Amino acid sequence: MMKLHGYWRSSASYRVRIALNLKGIEVEHHAVNLKVGEHLSTAHKGLNAQPFVPVLELEDGTKLTQSLAILDYLEEVYPEPALLPADPAVKAKVKAAAHIIASDIAPIQNLRVLKFIVAEHGQDGLGVKKWAAHWIAQGFRSLESMAQQGGGVLSLENSPGYFECFLVPQIYNAFRFEVDMDEFPSLMAIYKEVSTLPAFIKAAPEKQHDAP
Amino acid sequence: MMKLHGYWRSSASYRVRIALNLKGIEVEHHAVNLKVGEHLSTAHKGLNAQPFVPVLELEDGTKLTQSLAILDYLEEVYPEPALLPADPAVKAKVKAAAHIIASDIAPIQNLRVLKFIVAEHGQDGLGVKKWAAHWIAQGFRSLESMAQQGGGVLSLENSPGYFECFLVPQIYNAFRFEVDMDEFPSLMAIYKEVSTLPAFIKAAPEKQHDAP
Repeated sequence: MMKLHGYWRSSASYRVRIALNLKGIEVEHHAVNLKVGEHLSTAHKGLNAQPFVPVLELEDGTKLTQSLAILDYLEEVYPEPALLPADPAVKAKVKAAAHIIASDIAPIQNLRVLKFIVAEHGQDGLGVKKWAAHWIAQGFRSLESMAQQGGGVLSLENSPGYFECFLVPQIYNAFRFEVDMDEFPSLMAIYKEVSTLPAFIKAAPEKQHDAP
Repeated sequence: MMKLHGYWRSSASYRVRIALNLKGIEVEHHAVNLKVGEHLSTAHKGLNAQPFVPVLELEDGTKLTQSLAILDYLEEVYPEPALLPADPAVKAKVKAAAHIIASDIAPIQNLRVLKFIVAEHGQDGLGVKKWAAHWIAQGFRSLESMAQQGGGVLSLENSPGYFECFLVPQIYNAFRFEVDMDEFPSLMAIYKEVSTLPAFIKAAPEKQHDAP
């Protein structure tokens, strides 16, 4: 059985959990407690040269890192059910939307960046919230336009896929930073629809064994 | 002929230019001057709901965005020469290394973020340089470990590929922010080797028609 090294509240771990559930793949879950710095330990460095989660450990011991690369791996090795459309150009559009979240939102409001603006730029709790909400809202504005223009192109016909693996954890994060989600009706419509599905319910942070 | 809307100094445009050259694909180049805000124009919004470059416009008018998604599209539709290894797990490792650059370095030291820390956090030129160099060096430390541990796994046998499309623009950026590259001998060895190849020379920022 594969092993997923992750953390209940990590967005990137949450994405991989959703994808695994959508594909019906059972894995063993191993918690890496980011709050107490377990990701900086020598043990974790043996799993991942970058002190990040998630790490998907394959049955032969190969360790895969970076949620985007892990999702592409799962899509290739476990093609059914597909999380991406077959047409290369449509696929590229869905991936682009996911990458707005994975590249242009999440890493900027990652904990290590928040810690830096507190320590080095003297930001307080309000400054941190403003920072995170700013980058989330900016990315969501682009995605909301894409969702409205695309007429459902972001989601697979009748079933959630790759984009939703990124959107749901990012909206979970947006709630934490009190982003006004009324500005993003199309994104919220997708969120509400998929939130009732078992694959998403089971992947939710508070359902993980390491959640407090 | 496909059309690449980009900017000479944009890392993400630079990545796509290298990939196109490696695959021997000719495109028409259209400059979007980020310095004077052309990416915020209504014309550019018609190309990309996110005010970013690059945009790859296909012959049928379809507009692809986000460099990662564009590279995956090119690899699928123009498979020869391959930029990624065939084995799914090895491929995932190469992609993970590229994603460290595309997600965990570049977006954090993007111009829009640098502008924000100047305007909102009162950072000066020195603060901006410290910020950019910090995130570049942190990501490069992980990549240097991966390169040393992996025994060449990041590059295709005897030929540069996907990872180099991301590494070269990021090192170009590191020079701008005066990152001490002596700390990253494996990355510099790859950089020096590929910098002499026509595909990389032709893609260099200063070789573009919109470079000053």
